[in-house]
Amino acid sequence: MNPTLETFSQGEEIVTGQTVDTNAAWLSQQAVQLGFTVTRHTAVGDKLDDLITLLQEISSRADCCICTGGLGPTTDDLTTEAVAQAFGLQLVFDAAAFARMQQFFANRNKPMPEANRKQAMLPEGALRLDNDWGTAPGFAIQHNRCWFAFLPGVPSEMRPMFLEKILPTLPERFALRPATLITVKTIGLGESDIQQRISAVPIPQQVQLGFRAGLNDVQTKLLFPQGYPAAERQTLVDRIAAPLGDYVFAIDGAGCESGDLVAVIDGLMMQQGKTLAVVETVSQGLLAGLCLGANWLLETRYEQSIERLRHKLNITVTGDDVMAQAQAIAATLRQGSGADYVLVQLYTGDKNQFNDRDQAIVLYDVLLTESGFKTAAHTVAGSGKRKQTQAALLALDLLRRHLQQKA
Amino acid sequence: MNPTLETFSQGEEIVTGQTVDTNAAWLSQQAVQLGFTVTRHTAVGDKLDDLITLLQEISSRADCCICTGGLGPTTDDLTTEAVAQAFGLQLVFDAAAFARMQQFFANRNKPMPEANRKQAMLPEGALRLDNDWGTAPGFAIQHNRCWFAFLPGVPSEMRPMFLEKILPTLPERFALRPATLITVKTIGLGESDIQQRISAVPIPQQVQLGFRAGLNDVQTKLLFPQGYPAAERQTLVDRIAAPLGDYVFAIDGAGCESGDLVAVIDGLMMQQGKTLAVVETVSQGLLAGLCLGANWLLETRYEQSIERLRHKLNITVTGDDVMAQAQAIAATLRQGSGADYVLVQLYTGDKNQFNDRDQAIVLYDVLLTESGFKTAAHTVAGSGKRKQTQAALLALDLLRRHLQQKA
Repeated sequence: MNPTLETFSQGEEIVTGQTVDTNAAWLSQQAVQLGFTVTRHTAVGDKLDDLITLLQEISSRADCCICTGGLGPTTDDLTTEAVAQAFGLQLVFDAAAFARMQQFFANRNKPMPEANRKQAMLPEGALRLDNDWGTAPGFAIQHNRCWFAFLPGVPSEMRPMFLEKILPTLPERFALRPATLITVKTIGLGESDIQQRISAVPIPQQVQLGFRAGLNDVQTKLLFPQGYPAAERQTLVDRIAAPLGDYVFAIDGAGCESGDLVAVIDGLMMQQGKTLAVVETVSQGLLAGLCLGANWLLETRYEQSIERLRHKLNITVTGDDVMAQAQAIAATLRQGSGADYVLVQLYTGDKNQFNDRDQAIVLYDVLLTESGFKTAAHTVAGSGKRKQTQAALLALDLLRRHLQQKA
Repeated sequence: MNPTLETFSQGEEIVTGQTVDTNAAWLSQQAVQLGFTVTRHTAVGDKLDDLITLLQEISSRADCCICTGGLGPTTDDLTTEAVAQAFGLQLVFDAAAFARMQQFFANRNKPMPEANRKQAMLPEGALRLDNDWGTAPGFAIQHNRCWFAFLPGVPSEMRPMFLEKILPTLPERFALRPATLITVKTIGLGESDIQQRISAVPIPQQVQLGFRAGLNDVQTKLLFPQGYPAAERQTLVDRIAAPLGDYVFAIDGAGCESGDLVAVIDGLMMQQGKTLAVVETVSQGLLAGLCLGANWLLETRYEQSIERLRHKLNITVTGDDVMAQAQAIAATLRQGSGADYVLVQLYTGDKNQFNDRDQAIVLYDVLLTESGFKTAAHTVAGSGKRKQTQAALLALDLLRRHLQQKA
C-alpha cells in the first residue's frame, strides 16, 4: 500500500473561484510520481473555524498533506494561526526567519512593512522551510497520523520550495515505491490525432496511459510501476513515439528532462553556436517573450501590417504569394541583423477572422538557414489568444525541426 | 447568513493532477454572485468508500452541493452508485433518460454501447436533469441538510446544464441575497503596502475585505451584503482608493467592469485616437504580446543590447545617463514609426543580475507624449520571468497614467 497524500489549498480567492487552484494538480502529479496515492484535494476560504476543522480531519486520515496558501502578511492569511489552534501549539518568533525576511526587503531596497513580522511566527516544534523565492517562510509538522508541510500559495514560490525543500526529505519519511513517468511531448497534433495514431499499440495493464493537452504542447504520458524492466519500458516508449514521427520534440523521464520547446531549442542553438532574428505578426511578441534570457536571440520586431513591414525594409515583392514576401523579408533582415537564422511569420486573414474563434487564419512561416529557406504553412482557428500562442509555437517548431535534423 | 455551498469533483484524473479542476472555480464564481457563501471544494478519485464518506460528510455540513464528474458509462464512474449507498436508496431505471440517450446516439448514426445503459439508472426519488449536450443525465436530490446536484465533469456539458437546468431553480430553493463585489485594482504596490496604506480606514463588520496578488495586478476586494446602502458603499470605496492614489488603474463592480491594465489602456487609446510604438528590452516581447489585437499598437522591437539599438537607430548619445539615451531613442523612433506615443524601456544590469532572483535591475521607462517626455525608474527583483512581467506592466502603466491624467 502506498502512503496516502492529500492537498489542502487555503484562500478566499480559491473558494470564490477568482483563482483556479493549479497547485493541487501540480503537487498531485509530483506526489504520484514519488509513489504516493493521492486521495483528496480540499480548498477552504479564510474562516478560521473551517481551517481548524479541516486540519484536524486530515491529521487522522492521511499520511501526508501538502498545504498551500494563507501564509501571507495580511489579516486574511490564517493558516499558521489555524495550525496552532488545531494542534494545540503556541506560536513562537523565529529569529532566523525574520532575518531572512529583512534580507529579502534589503535586497530590493525597500523597508519591510510591519505587517510582515507576523510571518516569522511559527508553531512551536515546526520545522522551518526557508523561502528563497519570496517572503513567507513555510514550515512542516507532524500531527496524529499526518506529516503536514505548509507552503505559500503563489506557484512561483510554492513549486521551487516543494522541489528543493520538501521533495528530497520525503524518501526518508515515507516508504515510497516511485513509479517512472515517461512523457512524449509533441507540437502540432491534437489529443485525438495522437490517440488514433497510437491505437494499435497494446498497453500492458500495469502501465497507465494518459494525455495532457497543455497550452504549449500535447503530452502523452506513460506511468510505469516500480520494478518494470527498463528494456521493456524502452520498447513500449519507442512503439508509442514511432507513429508520432517528428511531431515529437522531446521524450522526458527516467533521468532525461529536456524541458519545453524553447528549452529544447535553447540547447540546440547553444550547442550549434547560432543566432536568430525574428519578425512576428500573429504571435505579436509572444515568440520573443517565450525565449526570455536566450543569448542567441539578437532581435525581434512586430509590425501591425505587412505593408508597414515592406515599407520599413524596402521590400519590393508584392502580390498574393505571401511565402515569397516572407522570404524577401528574411533575406533583407539577415543583412540588417547579422543573425545566422531569420524566422519570419506572416499570415493572411483580417482583424475579424483573427478575433472570431470560429474563423481560421493561415500562417506562413519562413526560416532562412545556412542552406536556404525552410517553409511551413498552418491553418489555425480558435480565440485570438489561441491563434497567438499557436503562431509562436509553430514558428519556433520550424526552427526546432531544422536544428534537430542537423544535430 | 447566506446559504452555504460546496463543490465536489470526482475523478482519478483530478486527484492525480492529470486534469486541473476548473469546474470548482467556475461553479464558485456563479455561486458567489447568486448569494451563496462557498465554504469548501473537495476532489476525490474513483474509490467508492471515499465517495460515500464524502457525500455523507457534506450532507450534514452544507446547504447546497454541486457535484461534477463520475456519471460516465465506464466502471470507474461511481458517483451514482455512491449516492445510492451513502443515502440508502435503490437505483431505478429511468425510461425517459434512456429514451433520450437512445435519441442522442440515433442523431449521430451510432449504435448505443451497452455500457451506457447504466447511465439511465438514477437513485429513487431523484430529480432527473436532462443533458442536452451529451449522454449522461444529471440528477438532484435532497439528503439531510443538503440539496445535491450531480452534473457531468466535461465543462462543455456541465456549464450549460448548470446555467439552464439548475441556476433558474435556485432562488426558489434557497433564500439568496446576492452580494456586491467591488475590486480596486492597482499596479506597483505590494499586498502589504496596500494593507498598510488603508489600515486607518475602518471596515464595517458586514463588509468583507480581501486581497489578491495576481501576476498582472494586486486587487483589493470589498464584498458588500445585499441591502448595503449604495451611497455608503461608494464612500467606503472612495476611502479605500484615496490612499492608494494613482496606483489605482481601475475600480470594478456594481455594473462597471474595466478589465485588466491593457483593457483600460485600450479604452483610453481608442477614445483619444492615439497610436503607439514601443522598444522593449527586459520585457522582451511580452508588452506587445499583452496588447494582442490592439489597433493602436503600430510596432514594437526588441534588441538584445542597448549597443545594438544605438547602432541600428544611429543614436549618438552614450554614457551613464540611461534616461537620456532612452529619450534619444524615443525621439528617433517617433520619426520612423509615425506613432503619436513612443514607449522605450531600457535597463541597467547584466545577464547575471537579470537571471539571479536575488539581484535587482533598474528599469528606465520613457514615454514620448504630445507634451514632451514622461519618465519613471523602478527597481525590480525576482526571477527573470518576474522581472519580465514587471517590466512590461510598469512600462504600460506609465502610458496608463498619462492617458488617465489627460482624460
